[in-house]
Amino acid sequence: MPTHTIHGDCHHVGWDNALPPVLTVAPGATIEFECLDASGGQLTAASTLADLAALDFARINPTTGPVFIDGAQPGDAIKITIGAFAPSGFGWTANIPGFGLLADQFVEPALHLWTYDKVAMTPAAYSPVGRVPLKPFAGTIGLALAEPGVHSVVPPRRVGGNLDIRDLAAGTVLYLPVEVAGGLFSVGDTHAAQGDGEICGTAIESPMSVTLTLDLVKDARLETPRYTTPGPVTRHLDAKGYEVTTGLGPDLMTAARGAVARMVDLIAARTGMAPVEAYMLCSVCGDLRISEIVDLPNWVVGFYFPRLVLE
Amino acid sequence: MPTHTIHGDCHHVGWDNALPPVLTVAPGATIEFECLDASGGQLTAASTLADLAALDFARINPTTGPVFIDGAQPGDAIKITIGAFAPSGFGWTANIPGFGLLADQFVEPALHLWTYDKVAMTPAAYSPVGRVPLKPFAGTIGLALAEPGVHSVVPPRRVGGNLDIRDLAAGTVLYLPVEVAGGLFSVGDTHAAQGDGEICGTAIESPMSVTLTLDLVKDARLETPRYTTPGPVTRHLDAKGYEVTTGLGPDLMTAARGAVARMVDLIAARTGMAPVEAYMLCSVCGDLRISEIVDLPNWVVGFYFPRLVLE
Repeated sequence: MPTHTIHGDCHHVGWDNALPPVLTVAPGATIEFECLDASGGQLTAASTLADLAALDFARINPTTGPVFIDGAQPGDAIKITIGAFAPSGFGWTANIPGFGLLADQFVEPALHLWTYDKVAMTPAAYSPVGRVPLKPFAGTIGLALAEPGVHSVVPPRRVGGNLDIRDLAAGTVLYLPVEVAGGLFSVGDTHAAQGDGEICGTAIESPMSVTLTLDLVKDARLETPRYTTPGPVTRHLDAKGYEVTTGLGPDLMTAARGAVARMVDLIAARTGMAPVEAYMLCSVCGDLRISEIVDLPNWVVGFYFPRLVLE
Repeated sequence: MPTHTIHGDCHHVGWDNALPPVLTVAPGATIEFECLDASGGQLTAASTLADLAALDFARINPTTGPVFIDGAQPGDAIKITIGAFAPSGFGWTANIPGFGLLADQFVEPALHLWTYDKVAMTPAAYSPVGRVPLKPFAGTIGLALAEPGVHSVVPPRRVGGNLDIRDLAAGTVLYLPVEVAGGLFSVGDTHAAQGDGEICGTAIESPMSVTLTLDLVKDARLETPRYTTPGPVTRHLDAKGYEVTTGLGPDLMTAARGAVARMVDLIAARTGMAPVEAYMLCSVCGDLRISEIVDLPNWVVGFYFPRLVLE
């Protein structure tokens, strides 16, 4: 059970090691963090495309914190045991022009609003077709950088941040390298569901609270984030197998773009969805995997779409 | 049940649309293919590092075929329903200098010989530690290219070939685009197990027979291979979850190399294996996934090592 709750108004945008901690804890503390959604509350269940067009990007991706962990020093790691999520039942997915793997092909804004059962957490209906299994996680989870100043929250870095790793879900243990005294931990950008890749640039963006335990590993000498999952990571969506499209060639990015573009075409053709709707659906449930990366000069990237979403 | 068996001596190395078919069939035919291992029989259960050093690369990766499918024309697709495998119980994994994701770090040859239970197909022991779940599949499965001449079997192409996709296993349905009359289908390079990426360049390379059904889809207009799996693809190895290392940055290849190098270090440190042994173990059971590909300018690649292999 958490000993503290940090409310959502204790948030910041961007990473800055000069920010004063909102809480100082001993290693082993369990804390509840109220997380805003990635829009910082700008998008709600009543939002329209006009609200998406009016987004203030200076408020995008707030994180709750920072928390100072006593004794943490550069060279150590913070061990984060991810506990329970308290989802809100509301979410949104958007195609934001200029952002996303196929930004050149999807230039118009699009917005989908989700309502899901925050207690039963049953798969969420997307449209007349499509039900997406839910698995809440924190998209942004990280520590402050050693370099002074404000650093954009968008790119993830070796200290974590906007990792958007789908499997940073309940029960996973995450290790992050410490660059500054106290680590200065913050978390936000909670998602109700996302596929590996987050290909359209957004997930089911959803405000929710998360309870985490923060421990300290001295002299861990960790280069980048690593994590341990407590069990399988895809059983919420793999029961009926996958439709898979491929891209191949000497560049992984081009191969990934090819695989995703072909899946968008396939889903749109099968369901009658508009391509941008299929693109957003792929982002919240489909997984990018590298099938082979050694058969010179052509690599194979697959996009795995879980069949149960449409069956 | 197959109506024909094509024996392993009916093989070729490389793709060449001038090769005469070894069999002509009507669409819907079910055929058993005896497949040699990727060394073409040069490596056996008695092999040593000296045999690896003496490999004749002109004999590498033979495929059994080609089969002419009546009525197949450019623009069509061959639909391949992958049936049963009859594994041999013998396999090998090697680090071949100059080949593999970390070829610059692993410059010395290494060879591991496997014996596995070809009936029970229980996880195969690697060393005093490590048991690898098995899932047979064909690493090389493809059609002839339109362009005349002999083309290397190493790189996969839009017509398939050395795809090394772990999930082309029993029950999967694969679609390949046709470029020449009859398609000219061949298969080989059978693997008893492999992780996504095949990161050291080899899997559990193992001779075995495979039974396939070849159908024709007219005017399919397929750009690259696609496939449908009949069910989950990782349940043979995900029961205890994963250890995951990450690489991140603006280049997916660099990120993938970083993630894998960190996992090799982790497995070697935990088990006492030599790094090259950990590298080969990672190749046969660990999966490369793209966690996010949209948070400019840094992408996240994860290497997922199934914990049950060591627990």
